[in-house]
Amino acid sequence: MKATIMYAAGDVRVEDVPDPSIVEPTDAIVRVTSACICGSDLWPYADMEPSETGQSMGHEAIGLVEEVGAEVRAVKPGDLVVMPFAYSDGACEFCQEGLQTECVHVGFFGNNGINGAQAEALRIPLADGTLFPLPVGEDHALMPSLLTLSDVMGTGHHAAVVAGVKPGDAVAVVGDGAVGLCGVIAAKRLGAEQIIILGRHQDRTDLAREHGATDVVAERGAEAVARVRELTGGFGVHGVLECVGTAGAIETSLEIARPGGAIGRVGVPHYPAIPLAQPMFYKNIKVGGGPAPVRAYIDELLPDILDGRIEPGRVFDRTVGLDGVPDGYRAMADRESIKVLVKP
Amino acid sequence: MKATIMYAAGDVRVEDVPDPSIVEPTDAIVRVTSACICGSDLWPYADMEPSETGQSMGHEAIGLVEEVGAEVRAVKPGDLVVMPFAYSDGACEFCQEGLQTECVHVGFFGNNGINGAQAEALRIPLADGTLFPLPVGEDHALMPSLLTLSDVMGTGHHAAVVAGVKPGDAVAVVGDGAVGLCGVIAAKRLGAEQIIILGRHQDRTDLAREHGATDVVAERGAEAVARVRELTGGFGVHGVLECVGTAGAIETSLEIARPGGAIGRVGVPHYPAIPLAQPMFYKNIKVGGGPAPVRAYIDELLPDILDGRIEPGRVFDRTVGLDGVPDGYRAMADRESIKVLVKP
Repeated sequence: MKATIMYAAGDVRVEDVPDPSIVEPTDAIVRVTSACICGSDLWPYADMEPSETGQSMGHEAIGLVEEVGAEVRAVKPGDLVVMPFAYSDGACEFCQEGLQTECVHVGFFGNNGINGAQAEALRIPLADGTLFPLPVGEDHALMPSLLTLSDVMGTGHHAAVVAGVKPGDAVAVVGDGAVGLCGVIAAKRLGAEQIIILGRHQDRTDLAREHGATDVVAERGAEAVARVRELTGGFGVHGVLECVGTAGAIETSLEIARPGGAIGRVGVPHYPAIPLAQPMFYKNIKVGGGPAPVRAYIDELLPDILDGRIEPGRVFDRTVGLDGVPDGYRAMADRESIKVLVKP
Repeated sequence: MKATIMYAAGDVRVEDVPDPSIVEPTDAIVRVTSACICGSDLWPYADMEPSETGQSMGHEAIGLVEEVGAEVRAVKPGDLVVMPFAYSDGACEFCQEGLQTECVHVGFFGNNGINGAQAEALRIPLADGTLFPLPVGEDHALMPSLLTLSDVMGTGHHAAVVAGVKPGDAVAVVGDGAVGLCGVIAAKRLGAEQIIILGRHQDRTDLAREHGATDVVAERGAEAVARVRELTGGFGVHGVLECVGTAGAIETSLEIARPGGAIGRVGVPHYPAIPLAQPMFYKNIKVGGGPAPVRAYIDELLPDILDGRIEPGRVFDRTVGLDGVPDGYRAMADRESIKVLVKP
């Protein structure tokens, strides 16, 4: 079968690889019907050291269960399932708390040697705890939105939950990528009254407005901070959804949070320390977040997608076959595309 | 009248100063009946640059209202009141949220030129929003515990609240000073099942055990981390109360928090950045905290003190008159005393 392998920064190839097969009795094999390229895939696309063996890529998918191991009970061949970006056993105390990304057996697809989903098929470890069966067929019109339950919609929701977004709040979303746009959807869904998106790509911020953003701040750094304060009566926002992961983004987030506010970090941090530890203290600001337990959030978000109340699938603005994946990386890296859907 | 002035590191003097008087119609004058020296006073005692004018010291007091300005309604001469360490207007949106330390008119007694409470009397700005009348007389046996409502008990409680302590939790308290000991009381009060105190002064950790600590970790750094993990099934604790404020303390706090856990910082941070931003992210750990809105917490904590359910006044192990204040600083700095009560 074909799968996407990254060998170095900028070097993504679609190659023939052996078909996946059941290794553990808790495995399932899923034939991918929809996958996509993630903003976080652009980090190694920018800076990966050359690797002779390469890394299988992709961590978001919907697919059909093709085969299951002897101990799998929750899914069966023929089921259409969402594959969260992390696998988890569903049984440990962290999974029971709804924090599957901290599962004692967690693994991340398309990372550290684990197989990826930008492929025709892949092996799913711990299938019972990981896969979520969908109540629809594979040709359902809402498939792009359902696919976001794999990662970006659940991740934007996590940022909003950690930022404590509640009805009436003023919220800022730092970043206008797919996660930022899903963060706007999540903040609106949780009742935020004012939603300020910080981003400089007009096609994206236009889409953010359609999803519920009330204000767009295209400035950066000190100018962005001044503008957000101006938009919020001088105090800043109750909650910040940090959807970028750079040192500049976390610093801006801290400066635009109002006293007592909270920051939900979901951008993979590319900085070693959180700056402004003293102002953060004197302002009683909270910082949290991390890999989103998207598996836990599907129950809550799925009905809103099926009923059309939220449309996170609009973050996809390009669809390619597997052979188009390398150019999809390029298009996202060049900001030609927000997010690329892959139909293997 | 007499008041305590600090002129430089190690240079604390009790001097004659002019009596306080009403300046604004919202002021009150309080004659101090009980005050104390705070662990945070030891920071300038260690490193204050020499100042010709000096800084009036002290931010914790109970006293009798002696005089009020024309607009004061909530307290009257003769009332016995708790003075929280910060004054606040009681009316702004932050005060209404219960976050009086972020009041738009906030000021901190004994800081930045504002008068202090290690004195015979002091002026209280914004008396209506600041002072809390007590339902007892000035000779009440529980006065030491009531005095902790000014700062340390409310501060320990804030750490526990921000750390999200709930029934059944495993909690660690970093620091065995008065705030750490009050943190133990607060964690137990909120239902923590396991309370690990990290401290190396046996008199203090013995007292912590009496207040509800289940384990004592006297090690520091990597050894402390290993010991806490060993005590908690390998995962670490749900909540950490960081009651020190050094770079080492926040680093240890991050390392002993379990995935999904939270850190409540109440030690004034003497570090510019929060380290381990990436492990903190991958573990979904939250960090919050700051100056405690102790004014907001009095309503909740006072009944427990009056009913004898908590005894935070036990952190006081020495009582001095005003003339004994300089030696009180020395005794606390030398770790001869946990906390010194001052009877002017």
